[in-house]
Amino acid sequence: MAQTPVLIILAGGASSRMWPLREKSLLRFGTEPLLVSQLQRYRALGFTEAIIIANPDNQADITTLAQQVSAMTVQIAVQPEPLGMGDAILRAEPLLARRTQTPIYINQVHDVVDDSLHLSLLNAYNTNPNASYLAGYAISNYFPGGYLIVTGDGRITGMVEKPAPENRPSNLVNIVAHIHSDAGVLFDAIRAEYARDIPTDDHYERAMDALMKTRMFHVVPYSGHWSALKYPWHVLDVMNYYLAQIKGQMVAETAFIAKTATLVGDVFIGDRVKIFPGAAVVGPAYIGADTVVGNNSLVRNSMVLNHCEVGFTTEVARSYVADNCAMHACRVLDSVFAQGVNFSAGCTTANLRIDKGTVSSMVKGQKINTGRDKLGAIIGRDAFLAVDVMTMPGVKIGERAQVGPGTHVVNDVADGIRVFVKQELGMIGGEA
Amino acid sequence: MAQTPVLIILAGGASSRMWPLREKSLLRFGTEPLLVSQLQRYRALGFTEAIIIANPDNQADITTLAQQVSAMTVQIAVQPEPLGMGDAILRAEPLLARRTQTPIYINQVHDVVDDSLHLSLLNAYNTNPNASYLAGYAISNYFPGGYLIVTGDGRITGMVEKPAPENRPSNLVNIVAHIHSDAGVLFDAIRAEYARDIPTDDHYERAMDALMKTRMFHVVPYSGHWSALKYPWHVLDVMNYYLAQIKGQMVAETAFIAKTATLVGDVFIGDRVKIFPGAAVVGPAYIGADTVVGNNSLVRNSMVLNHCEVGFTTEVARSYVADNCAMHACRVLDSVFAQGVNFSAGCTTANLRIDKGTVSSMVKGQKINTGRDKLGAIIGRDAFLAVDVMTMPGVKIGERAQVGPGTHVVNDVADGIRVFVKQELGMIGGEA
Amino acid sequence: MAQTPVLIILAGGASSRMWPLREKSLLRFGTEPLLVSQLQRYRALGFTEAIIIANPDNQADITTLAQQVSAMTVQIAVQPEPLGMGDAILRAEPLLARRTQTPIYINQVHDVVDDSLHLSLLNAYNTNPNASYLAGYAISNYFPGGYLIVTGDGRITGMVEKPAPENRPSNLVNIVAHIHSDAGVLFDAIRAEYARDIPTDDHYERAMDALMKTRMFHVVPYSGHWSALKYPWHVLDVMNYYLAQIKGQMVAETAFIAKTATLVGDVFIGDRVKIFPGAAVVGPAYIGADTVVGNNSLVRNSMVLNHCEVGFTTEVARSYVADNCAMHACRVLDSVFAQGVNFSAGCTTANLRIDKGTVSSMVKGQKINTGRDKLGAIIGRDAFLAVDVMTMPGVKIGERAQVGPGTHVVNDVADGIRVFVKQELGMIGGEA
Repeated sequence: MAQTPVLIILAGGASSRMWPLREKSLLRFGTEPLLVSQLQRYRALGFTEAIIIANPDNQADITTLAQQVSAMTVQIAVQPEPLGMGDAILRAEPLLARRTQTPIYINQVHDVVDDSLHLSLLNAYNTNPNASYLAGYAISNYFPGGYLIVTGDGRITGMVEKPAPENRPSNLVNIVAHIHSDAGVLFDAIRAEYARDIPTDDHYERAMDALMKTRMFHVVPYSGHWSALKYPWHVLDVMNYYLAQIKGQMVAETAFIAKTATLVGDVFIGDRVKIFPGAAVVGPAYIGADTVVGNNSLVRNSMVLNHCEVGFTTEVARSYVADNCAMHACRVLDSVFAQGVNFSAGCTTANLRIDKGTVSSMVKGQKINTGRDKLGAIIGRDAFLAVDVMTMPGVKIGERAQVGPGTHVVNDVADGIRVFVKQELGMIGGEA
Repeated sequence: MAQTPVLIILAGGASSRMWPLREKSLLRFGTEPLLVSQLQRYRALGFTEAIIIANPDNQADITTLAQQVSAMTVQIAVQPEPLGMGDAILRAEPLLARRTQTPIYINQVHDVVDDSLHLSLLNAYNTNPNASYLAGYAISNYFPGGYLIVTGDGRITGMVEKPAPENRPSNLVNIVAHIHSDAGVLFDAIRAEYARDIPTDDHYERAMDALMKTRMFHVVPYSGHWSALKYPWHVLDVMNYYLAQIKGQMVAETAFIAKTATLVGDVFIGDRVKIFPGAAVVGPAYIGADTVVGNNSLVRNSMVLNHCEVGFTTEVARSYVADNCAMHACRVLDSVFAQGVNFSAGCTTANLRIDKGTVSSMVKGQKINTGRDKLGAIIGRDAFLAVDVMTMPGVKIGERAQVGPGTHVVNDVADGIRVFVKQELGMIGGEA
Repeated sequence: MAQTPVLIILAGGASSRMWPLREKSLLRFGTEPLLVSQLQRYRALGFTEAIIIANPDNQADITTLAQQVSAMTVQIAVQPEPLGMGDAILRAEPLLARRTQTPIYINQVHDVVDDSLHLSLLNAYNTNPNASYLAGYAISNYFPGGYLIVTGDGRITGMVEKPAPENRPSNLVNIVAHIHSDAGVLFDAIRAEYARDIPTDDHYERAMDALMKTRMFHVVPYSGHWSALKYPWHVLDVMNYYLAQIKGQMVAETAFIAKTATLVGDVFIGDRVKIFPGAAVVGPAYIGADTVVGNNSLVRNSMVLNHCEVGFTTEVARSYVADNCAMHACRVLDSVFAQGVNFSAGCTTANLRIDKGTVSSMVKGQKINTGRDKLGAIIGRDAFLAVDVMTMPGVKIGERAQVGPGTHVVNDVADGIRVFVKQELGMIGGEA
């Protein structure tokens, strides 16, 4: 059996496109932060060594997270500046010390895939440890990614970045799950690309493209789940993946489920959760520890993490709600709430355009089509929405923002801003 | 036994006063459109032949509807222009061909009455087939209709249109349920009136008035249900009539009723209906096929036709909701929804004036007192009401109208219009 | 055993600071008005004679109320002008006739305390009927009241009104529960103070202070419940006291409790109350006769008096709702409603400041810190709030006020005023 590759986990990408959410590695989709969850899965698949590439902002968090994983050697490298994936990979080199000929398996922390992808790559590699292997994600609709040029016997001879739909060389898109048989060879090739004077930052892809001319690269096709956390609404896709892992009804012994409450389908009910009379949790759903699901409320196809209040007649549907959120007599639909959001009585995250088109959202000044028919709001931590606030589909609300009663939130609200309606009142009559 | 009269069913009246609803004959109060339901009842009472007077606009629909009734000969005549009821009746003449001496029974498709009215008229006619018979609706309060002048032995000697209350000749109002013993005699009398130069369009009434001088007309008093679809809120009256026909709980075998759902009183639950946990259907109520009554919602004294979504915590009370409507966490009170209305979360049809007076509504520029203490909204097909819309009592919203979030709808909204609130926001603070 | 003191119950204070509520004596915290409830308690403790000091405005009501109490001699005196507590007490003198040496027990109708306070005072008095006794309320936090100067053996030697916190002579605050061994001596001392030319209206306190120099006054320390109805939100404190008296589940035989309704904790359910499916009453809670708790609604830690409608999905939490209120699909939180309030669908009494600070309220032009973290609205009788009204924490709405749909009520609304939002609408498109 061949040597088990060393994992190179890229976790240093900026999370700025995730605003108003923060660091992706820390997002929790269950009891563990994403990075911990990913490491535990790698360990279960037989990996014993990982190098995580962090950035200066998340280095401390990632170091803390890595310590939560046992039976695995985890080292942290820091990429000081966002100079591209090639530069990030090179940061692993010193930590490999003299073992630069070792095989490496490059992954991104924010790519969530099935175990089967990792297993397929490992199997292929074990069959022939002299070749390198790239996952090829089989897609039916066009997607602006990197397409693999593949020969009939599965050899990859090149890659094309974002070709026009009619010029796609295959239906296989590059997904960052790459086993390189010899790390040193890859490092050298990347370095060579940085030495060239080419303005684009696809050094890693160019390095692979160059290596493919002389070395054997094979595609490992994949068609299972793949979700990548690029924009904040992708949290819902990753959530769905984790929700799909819940099988049956896992109800903590310390949980209270009222007699007239209803649990349907696959649900996880954490410690000390209270599900009050008339409430329903419809799976797949995850209710974290110490969360209260109040009378006659409904949680479905959602994650509500720990210490939340899902108050009377609240509906949480197809949404992700982080710790310590308070909701009351409101509708949380197709939305993502960071920790500590207060969503008052009568609030609604409108999730459907009046013209029923796909929902767009602004990211760094650009209007991005989210591709979603339904999307509510993304709300940053500790934001306070007063009674009867309506958020329009796809809006984002910053951390600690305060939104006054009755506001229709049509545009994004920046961090720390207070927004309120200037309501003009009329008055008639009265007794002196 | 006398010859069974040929039904003349007037269905050619314009439905413009019904805006934003459409053709009355097509309205469904159960599984069948009104016209079909009426024809089936006539057939069950022994009528075997009907002539329906349509107009150019509804001719196609009425032809289609008529084909749905078996064991009855149904012919369609078209009144090209709205020249009055007399003109409409004359359109039946060619279809009777040489049988102009046949008895006819004139009815309006949009008058909904008990079977007992038809039976009383038939009985009276069978007793003496040489006389004609008009139903006389016994009323206690004044109503601006046509009053019958009746002798002690029940002979009608004339009619007075909208007399002053103190000048009423009787408490019997003309309701269009008339058996004429000889159609040809009536046709001639009507034609004579059209030949005269009188500007009012009550040729039919004048013709009868003239005939009463020489021929025998008898009153058949009636005090059962009578509702006429003149204005759109009358849909609620007709609905109540049909709801009262539901006896006991008729639940389709394919329906799903959750264990904690409640059915109370007389309810019809159609095929594949789903009643989710905590929901209640309180009779009399009709839930059409494929409709979903979501968690903790309430439908009472209402008809919700097919393929509707009564979403989480929605209340539908004393309302008529046609096919394919979507409602969610909203209140539909004393209202009429045409097909495909989207009534979003937080919407309410306010149904009570702040001064608790009777509700008025505008019809063709005129303010009409609806006589109702409670009336919500009348909403045309495919209108989209965004979150938190409040409609004021008696307003009407046109087909395909779009009403933006948080709008207070105070005035009627025309077909296809988009209305939205211009909300002025203030802003404080923020971090650069 | 000593002679039982005659109760002097001060009920003549103006209720203007209670606006928009009215006369305190009439407020009902259960089946009986406060004054009747207090009298019944005194009677149960052995008192047989009471003199109530009314004012010209409430004299008639108080006379009526007093007649509802049997087995007790109750006389009414009227204080014509609000000249202070001393003047009020003097009004009792003529009614005592020749018995001016009798002991008296001075109380205020709007002070709600445990029986133990009265019992302690009576016990002390019985032990030594020659001394007078004042209750001393032991407090931990500073409170701007009258502080007792007490010697080591419990003798009171003086009183200090609203001292600076660092100058408090003790932690015992004067609470109006005073047994005077000789009424005539007190009357004389009060009269002497009115004869002096001192502008403040604390004649009674000064009279006691003077008497303490020559006569024996003892403190009776107390640390049980004490709530005084000074401001309208104090109704919630008194309500909590009465709610705490409910032990177990007292459900009238004529009440209807649906099978899927839930009763939790200590609840009183009055005659003919209906609790509909999916509703919950969570104790301590009081539901008065003939009140309907509609489908899927929730009442908790609240009093809802008689003939109210708690409509579908309404929440009443920590609130006091007087007779004949109609609520529907709304949230009544930490609020006080007088009789006949209409609180329409979608209304919410916001109860939490966006900065989570304590809530203030305006009283007679002054901003008063209520000391409450959560406070909703105080609404006067027969006010009508239309759909989707939001009241901001601590606002008050006058009697018969009408608040239009969607209004954010930021400031108090005067009696009889109609307030409405001037909503500016935009419009696009439409078909001619």
